[in-house]
Amino acid sequence: MNYKMVVFILGWILKIESVLLLLPCLTALIFRESAGWFFLLAAGLALGLGVVMTIRKPKNTRVYAREGFVVVALAWLVMSLVGAIPFTLCGDIPSYLDAVFETVSGFTTTGSSILSEVEPLNHCSLIWRSFTHWVGGMGIFVFMLAVVPLLGGSTFNLMRAESPGPVVGKFVPRIRDTAAILYGIYLAITILECTLLTIFGMPFFEAVCHTFGTVGTGGFGVKNDSYMSYSPALQNITTFFMIACGINFQFYFYLIARKFRQAVKMTEVRAYICIILVCVTIITINLGDFYGSFGETLRHAFFQVGTIITTTGYATTDFDQWPTLSRNILVTLMIIGACAGSTGGGMKIQRIVISCKTIKKELGNIIHPRYVKKIQFDGTSVAHETVRSTNVFVAIYFLVFLGTVLLISVDGQSFETTFTAVAATLNNIGPGLGAVGATCNFGFFSPFSKCVLIFNMLAGRLELFPMLLLLYPSSWKKYN
Amino acid sequence: MNYKMVVFILGWILKIESVLLLLPCLTALIFRESAGWFFLLAAGLALGLGVVMTIRKPKNTRVYAREGFVVVALAWLVMSLVGAIPFTLCGDIPSYLDAVFETVSGFTTTGSSILSEVEPLNHCSLIWRSFTHWVGGMGIFVFMLAVVPLLGGSTFNLMRAESPGPVVGKFVPRIRDTAAILYGIYLAITILECTLLTIFGMPFFEAVCHTFGTVGTGGFGVKNDSYMSYSPALQNITTFFMIACGINFQFYFYLIARKFRQAVKMTEVRAYICIILVCVTIITINLGDFYGSFGETLRHAFFQVGTIITTTGYATTDFDQWPTLSRNILVTLMIIGACAGSTGGGMKIQRIVISCKTIKKELGNIIHPRYVKKIQFDGTSVAHETVRSTNVFVAIYFLVFLGTVLLISVDGQSFETTFTAVAATLNNIGPGLGAVGATCNFGFFSPFSKCVLIFNMLAGRLELFPMLLLLYPSSWKKYN
Repeated sequence: MNYKMVVFILGWILKIESVLLLLPCLTALIFRESAGWFFLLAAGLALGLGVVMTIRKPKNTRVYAREGFVVVALAWLVMSLVGAIPFTLCGDIPSYLDAVFETVSGFTTTGSSILSEVEPLNHCSLIWRSFTHWVGGMGIFVFMLAVVPLLGGSTFNLMRAESPGPVVGKFVPRIRDTAAILYGIYLAITILECTLLTIFGMPFFEAVCHTFGTVGTGGFGVKNDSYMSYSPALQNITTFFMIACGINFQFYFYLIARKFRQAVKMTEVRAYICIILVCVTIITINLGDFYGSFGETLRHAFFQVGTIITTTGYATTDFDQWPTLSRNILVTLMIIGACAGSTGGGMKIQRIVISCKTIKKELGNIIHPRYVKKIQFDGTSVAHETVRSTNVFVAIYFLVFLGTVLLISVDGQSFETTFTAVAATLNNIGPGLGAVGATCNFGFFSPFSKCVLIFNMLAGRLELFPMLLLLYPSSWKKYN
Repeated sequence: MNYKMVVFILGWILKIESVLLLLPCLTALIFRESAGWFFLLAAGLALGLGVVMTIRKPKNTRVYAREGFVVVALAWLVMSLVGAIPFTLCGDIPSYLDAVFETVSGFTTTGSSILSEVEPLNHCSLIWRSFTHWVGGMGIFVFMLAVVPLLGGSTFNLMRAESPGPVVGKFVPRIRDTAAILYGIYLAITILECTLLTIFGMPFFEAVCHTFGTVGTGGFGVKNDSYMSYSPALQNITTFFMIACGINFQFYFYLIARKFRQAVKMTEVRAYICIILVCVTIITINLGDFYGSFGETLRHAFFQVGTIITTTGYATTDFDQWPTLSRNILVTLMIIGACAGSTGGGMKIQRIVISCKTIKKELGNIIHPRYVKKIQFDGTSVAHETVRSTNVFVAIYFLVFLGTVLLISVDGQSFETTFTAVAATLNNIGPGLGAVGATCNFGFFSPFSKCVLIFNMLAGRLELFPMLLLLYPSSWKKYN
């Protein structure tokens, strides 16, 4: 382990966080809230630590896969530990563990909350909660690579460890340019949604917070009833942007580059749209006359499918009251998740598609044992390594899921609550069913279970390996 | 597809089933039950069909993997369809679909029942239910290979398709001898348990039925309250034999061959025993003073852990009333299952061990990208092909699980009921939690859901591939 380089990179992350913390400070200034001082204090702390840690650039700047994974996991932990401080100091979330849970939930774009009410919070706390979604959605390292010219050639392993999905898409040869393009698209979508929400009547502050929560597919809001009291138009706009941010960003890159044919041909995006349409249809039929009119049913179905498949977590209705089929479709969507290379969580459509193709290939192999066929995806054959790691990922995911269900079972909650609490955190969704349903919160869990769920949120966002490496002793050995 | 050979083998299976059906006929003779005539009728039908189908041995006797998998899947279906007839004719199970469910549940050693009461059944029906467990436990093809000298050299693919576990263990070079040894061990265990149960006071008829249910790890009994009303001694004997039949039979082969060191060194058996002891300990602590005394708690814990991990399905207590942690441990054990090469179901300990080792290897690969290490099992390195198919199996298992949960969600049962009904059938356990708990039954499901669960039971027993191949169009193509 190249410890010096780990410390150096963490220092840079802290410096960036200190800048990010100025947004809540600014908000506090506008709304004249004294809580802003605590955010300034946290910014100062982060800056001070960051400067000390980056005072000397190490001679050996190599970042191997090992350092990449470990430093990404540590960075997300450190950012959350520092970002949680102002919540506790200003009294909005008195327990520090709860504040860490809330911040991890923010950065990982989960949206699970320990708060029963959000309306009493300071405006600066509210915007910081939502802003963590925005930062975490595209990833802090992508941001760092886009703005900080620091690491020379060895940045690929950082991006690889943080990016969601089995393959890292490099749009252009240089990582730095790819990162800048990604953030450019991200910013454009953000501005567009915020403008639309404001035009259609949402107060500007709420529009900003909800935009952060939507494009980061996070789910923190500013209202106790999430999206239930907003107008149908605002709900529909949000549905559109949630679904748009669950699409692989490569799609938008193709659009910008005027490669429309390649954009339309993307298997994953097609599968994603198909799954959404099929699920909305089934749920609409299953709901029948649950709501007043067909239009309302369709709106709620689209919103809830969008919110769950992209793992955002807003709600326009208490879907815990829906019939079992509709609820179980939502649970399945929780696990499937959005596209790889989007801001959404879950296992990712691409992995599901590759897994399905593996099954087909496996059956074909039994029938024609000597006929070796490579799995195709988007017209090119998928590397053996990708197929292998996808299947390993599914297997690990399954074991982590089972293991953490057992760990939080100690709390003695119902099967449904326990199971969907794990699903909701490991897939970075937010709400589950039962006692962690759309109208409830995670505050009642024991400190131990909260720690397990914090681990799950980070493991889900960073796609298992970085967090598992933290627990793996050999990671920490020094190089000979 | 070599259709002639498929028909020929199915004919032999029917001939064997006609012989097996003589046991309930004999029972009916002893208890002077008129229902016995219907079993004789079914035996005659099976014999007639079997003779017609085997009248000419095909010239081309090759059984490739494709035929092996398809014929095994078809054979289990046909056996169940024929075996269900007498239940309906004699009026014990009026609905034929229910009778098929019960018979599939029997042959696959699941033990899920659609009956709310078993005590009113005829003795011949009861013994046939239990006897299907015994036949299905070790496998009908293993039996056929042991007694029928018919197929020449191409029998390996049949054994491969029916045997539980990622690797087919051949104890001795000839498949036929291996099959004979397996049935020899199986018969010895059966006789031993039946004798012990009778000595300790169980009526002989009940002892025979319960022995079939135990050694086949099935779970059909003859009492409405399963094992609750039997003496502690009888419960403990059954616990011992359930656990013994969940062990890889290779272990017993080593014992017979006096290779004690190899027997003790078997990783899978060690892991199996460890898991049982750890789970019993945690459950005993978790139950606290749920029962009167420590001894009683330990007895119930051992019985329930044994019954679930081996996927038998008897119960000495209503474990649906246990605290969440204990219940979720049982759900996890349902999924893990027993050893490969045993009569138990589930994913098999061996796959879990290989999956865990894959995770470790994967993490090691990130740390040392150029250091290629093979996964070791029992001192030898596991073939790349086995590791791959294990991870693919886990991925398929996961998808089939999710898919069938969705399908039976249409019935609108609770999340817990839906989820554990799938777990209980796909892993061949028997009871689940909630409305399919230890004291309940599967009779309330809709015909469609029953068909899905029948598919799950067969898919679970035959380890997914044979049943999936039935649904895969290319399987049915004729050879050019």
